[in-house]
Amino acid sequence: MTREQLFEQILKKKSYLCVGLDTDPKKLPQHLLDTEDPVFEFNRQIIEATADLCVAYKPNIAFYEAQGPAGWVSLEKTLQVIPGDIFTIADAKRGDIGNTAELYARAFFETLNFDSVTVAPYMGADSVKPFLQPDKWVILLALTSNTGSQDFQMLRLEDGNEEYLFEQVLRTSADWGPADQMMYVVGATQADYVQRVRDIVPNHFLLVPGVGAQGGSLEDISRIGMNKQCGLLVNSSRGIIYASSGPDFAEKAREAALAMQREMEQYLDQYLG
Amino acid sequence: MTREQLFEQILKKKSYLCVGLDTDPKKLPQHLLDTEDPVFEFNRQIIEATADLCVAYKPNIAFYEAQGPAGWVSLEKTLQVIPGDIFTIADAKRGDIGNTAELYARAFFETLNFDSVTVAPYMGADSVKPFLQPDKWVILLALTSNTGSQDFQMLRLEDGNEEYLFEQVLRTSADWGPADQMMYVVGATQADYVQRVRDIVPNHFLLVPGVGAQGGSLEDISRIGMNKQCGLLVNSSRGIIYASSGPDFAEKAREAALAMQREMEQYLDQYLG
Repeated sequence: MTREQLFEQILKKKSYLCVGLDTDPKKLPQHLLDTEDPVFEFNRQIIEATADLCVAYKPNIAFYEAQGPAGWVSLEKTLQVIPGDIFTIADAKRGDIGNTAELYARAFFETLNFDSVTVAPYMGADSVKPFLQPDKWVILLALTSNTGSQDFQMLRLEDGNEEYLFEQVLRTSADWGPADQMMYVVGATQADYVQRVRDIVPNHFLLVPGVGAQGGSLEDISRIGMNKQCGLLVNSSRGIIYASSGPDFAEKAREAALAMQREMEQYLDQYLG
Repeated sequence: MTREQLFEQILKKKSYLCVGLDTDPKKLPQHLLDTEDPVFEFNRQIIEATADLCVAYKPNIAFYEAQGPAGWVSLEKTLQVIPGDIFTIADAKRGDIGNTAELYARAFFETLNFDSVTVAPYMGADSVKPFLQPDKWVILLALTSNTGSQDFQMLRLEDGNEEYLFEQVLRTSADWGPADQMMYVVGATQADYVQRVRDIVPNHFLLVPGVGAQGGSLEDISRIGMNKQCGLLVNSSRGIIYASSGPDFAEKAREAALAMQREMEQYLDQYLG
């Protein structure tokens, strides 16, 4: 998917919501457990209930991998029921040397036909470049939403400017490919630093986790982070897909997604440059 | 597997060889392509031919993941034919926030029963700690063998000592758990820095890729890196498993593994402190 197509979707739906499909077999509503593939059935109903309110779906690959081969089958089937105009993100956080990165790119872009994959930066350029492919996207970890982001991402560098490591990651990686093929993960819990992110990468899209359960503010991240093409995909996982654990889970998921979409519609009016 | 059990294996086999199972379906010998599961059949024969010469096997997860669900089946079957006294490494380079890291730990330690998994440090403590489990190991990326290791791992920090980032990764993470549950990836191509690694983590095991195809020297890494319990697992993938592409692939793999084992026997005599 191109950046223009993504922006069109955002304008059409008045939404930059990404729904995280962190589907845990232990948290499924009872009544789904008798179906042939409960994880897929859950995802299918969530997608049906939210597809007009969001512009992206982000399966968290760990949840599928933990089920062994059956999990990969659930994931494949899930991808097949996501409408073609919705952006898909394999939240896999891969990162390995060149020849191995090529295989991860094959796994997510060809075997599974995702639009994008999240990638860790620690191993540098040759671990990221194999994911830079036409109409596909690398989403590189920059400043994550978890407490561990303090351990290394926020280390200051001896570079004369005392930049943080995450700033150097942004600066260096932005040269590896066009803003049409790269996004960055920036946690909503890091609103204090989003201006620093925008100073370095004004035009890139940011994938923003951490709203909701992790405590980040949708308004703050929207006010500070939005650019002329919106430039934000804000993810919510648990807050939407586990809004209810009963037979009404899909209906409640829709309500939660609708509440976020309405808030986003407001911020698009206010902050779209 | 405990550190003592691993060291016993090393002494018994006079080897600290890890065979990397980077099994690419495109590189399999012709005569295996008719079998039901060629990737598994290749691995089975490689394992049979090398199990008395090595102390660890390291499937590179990308190679299996790229095959979709069938790849995970090949991987499961491969794990089942590795003798129980040999250390197993899921070379997966995972790294995600706490609740997700728990699922990756479940995928590799429970669903697949690996002894260890490689993990990327960028997301910090909460992305690593869920892998610290009794008799299991985290193998954390510190200084990798690829050219991209220069991009971030070798950045100097504003910490008064101008340490490299990889040194801070070692220093910080060594406090997260005991040396019985953590190893570090240090590339054989980085022999110049191995003394700095040993100054910070004298007792930890190092998993060393990059000998062979990538140009690292087994002698250098052994001389500088070996400690009282050996403290090294040196990996070779392509140099062993693709020593021949013909019907004699297993025999030639054994010859390549034997040559490395003999060299290692010599270094154990010379350098075991």
